[in-house]
Amino acid sequence: MMTTEKEYIAYINKALSEIPYPAEPSGLYRPIAYTLDCGGKRIRPMLMLAVVEALGRDKGVAINQAVGLEMFHNFTLLHDDVMDRAEMRRGNPTVHVKWNESTAILSGDAMLTMASQFMMKGCGEKLADVLSLFNKTAMEIYEGQQYDMDFESRGDVTASEYIEMIRLKTSVLLGCACRMGALIAGASHTVQEAFYDYGMYLGLAFQLQDDWLDTYGDPAKFGKNIGGDILNDKKTLLLITALNRADSEQKARLTSLFGTRSDSKIVEVMKIYESLDVESECRERINDYSAKAIACLDKTGLSGDDLNFFINIARQSLTRKS
Amino acid sequence: MMTTEKEYIAYINKALSEIPYPAEPSGLYRPIAYTLDCGGKRIRPMLMLAVVEALGRDKGVAINQAVGLEMFHNFTLLHDDVMDRAEMRRGNPTVHVKWNESTAILSGDAMLTMASQFMMKGCGEKLADVLSLFNKTAMEIYEGQQYDMDFESRGDVTASEYIEMIRLKTSVLLGCACRMGALIAGASHTVQEAFYDYGMYLGLAFQLQDDWLDTYGDPAKFGKNIGGDILNDKKTLLLITALNRADSEQKARLTSLFGTRSDSKIVEVMKIYESLDVESECRERINDYSAKAIACLDKTGLSGDDLNFFINIARQSLTRKS
Repeated sequence: MMTTEKEYIAYINKALSEIPYPAEPSGLYRPIAYTLDCGGKRIRPMLMLAVVEALGRDKGVAINQAVGLEMFHNFTLLHDDVMDRAEMRRGNPTVHVKWNESTAILSGDAMLTMASQFMMKGCGEKLADVLSLFNKTAMEIYEGQQYDMDFESRGDVTASEYIEMIRLKTSVLLGCACRMGALIAGASHTVQEAFYDYGMYLGLAFQLQDDWLDTYGDPAKFGKNIGGDILNDKKTLLLITALNRADSEQKARLTSLFGTRSDSKIVEVMKIYESLDVESECRERINDYSAKAIACLDKTGLSGDDLNFFINIARQSLTRKS
Repeated sequence: MMTTEKEYIAYINKALSEIPYPAEPSGLYRPIAYTLDCGGKRIRPMLMLAVVEALGRDKGVAINQAVGLEMFHNFTLLHDDVMDRAEMRRGNPTVHVKWNESTAILSGDAMLTMASQFMMKGCGEKLADVLSLFNKTAMEIYEGQQYDMDFESRGDVTASEYIEMIRLKTSVLLGCACRMGALIAGASHTVQEAFYDYGMYLGLAFQLQDDWLDTYGDPAKFGKNIGGDILNDKKTLLLITALNRADSEQKARLTSLFGTRSDSKIVEVMKIYESLDVESECRERINDYSAKAIACLDKTGLSGDDLNFFINIARQSLTRKS
């Protein structure tokens, strides 16, 4: 019997809840427990453990690395929320709001070091490979965040620049999760790379679906307000495509709305998107990346239920509502 | 011939200047080069390399770890400056002033990961020991910074709490530097611990000398204004000792000055310090920790010039003016 997604999540949440934090200084450790307790899809550690099991090993052999990767992911969210001045995350106040900014910075730093500590546990002779993959991925994610911030003040971001930014900021961590599972399970270099590419394409599909949901999602299911990206003039693939396809009048209208914040702005921008068939461009890309992810599975040697597990995850990325 | 302090500093600065940063995104990497180019005593990497050489190995075997430790140290300064809202560091504007706060947070994060990457280079079979020491030390430093922030809002900090705070925030990194040098040089566990304790006591003497200089130093030599700690009501050993020894009238006067900022405050607090003989308590502690550091050298097996190098550093900590 394959482990189900629900079972993976429960297994990961149990491991996260059992992290033995020192009691003092509580101002450092309580915000870390709070951040990790706030939920989340646990998609990265789940992918890592599922790869380990699909390759015939017990999921327990990578649980420390899975915890480390989730710790790292939540560290990036914590610091991103400070940089973006985000006040809520998954329905709860962010750390810099609930405590203060210094706490958010310092607890985040501690999470990055703790992530490294978890990465090291039980790696044996694979220690150098595991840490090299982890550190390289971390650097790419900082680069992605930097590009994301750089794009805020640029009006000429291209679609391929945007895809490269989300590849760095989001997708490489899913690639890293899958590859690390294969690495720890003792898979060949080729299989490791196939899993990396699977995770990376899955990550692109995931992020574009997130962008799509931000504009076209059901607010009741999505869990946050619709239109945030439009209000913030975020250079998503939707906006970039619209600016590319717009005639001079539409372009002037879009540009004139930058910097404004109203519900009517969302409605007006969405009308322009509709007239330019922007949504279908975004949906095509999502389909394309999901298909590419599934194609990568050919080189992993998986079959049957194991193969289907990963195919299903890629297919779900096309239809998920939250 | 022993390598001199000047030669170590030049050797370390050369290695730091040759770090191959990617060209893009420049918003991420330029602040890192700027931070590392701002000078500093390079005491931590120097200690590490000096231990390596004193134990008969070439300093080159630990240069990556020395660079990693200096990178880590500068990361902590970068993030501390954001938390403390410090505008200047070593005569230059801090990163969050010269760029912005998001840049300071993200570049700092990247420095922590890059520090880990340097730590890993050329460690061979000592990788796990080097990284465990590094990560454990990092966690202690975050704890020290948290206690330092906690103490700001407390009026009852004891001398031993203060010493424990500076041990964590400052001293363990000097202990780590010395121990890592011994570890990489292949020294025994006993010798490693002796060097750790040497660095740790040296770090305590160093920090207390810093505190002393902040009140009693020569501004022309110290490089920053005198009395900053007094103006900021910093719970240093000087203030804690004064509060312990003060009669009710002096205590009321000291407490009433908290939260005020004027040159006359500095003069008045220093008069109270003088009447209570607070300075000599601080000087005694510095002498004591410097002597303890030197005593630790007994167990290292060093002799002659090698021994004298480390004795001199501990003695200098008593008399340095900047």
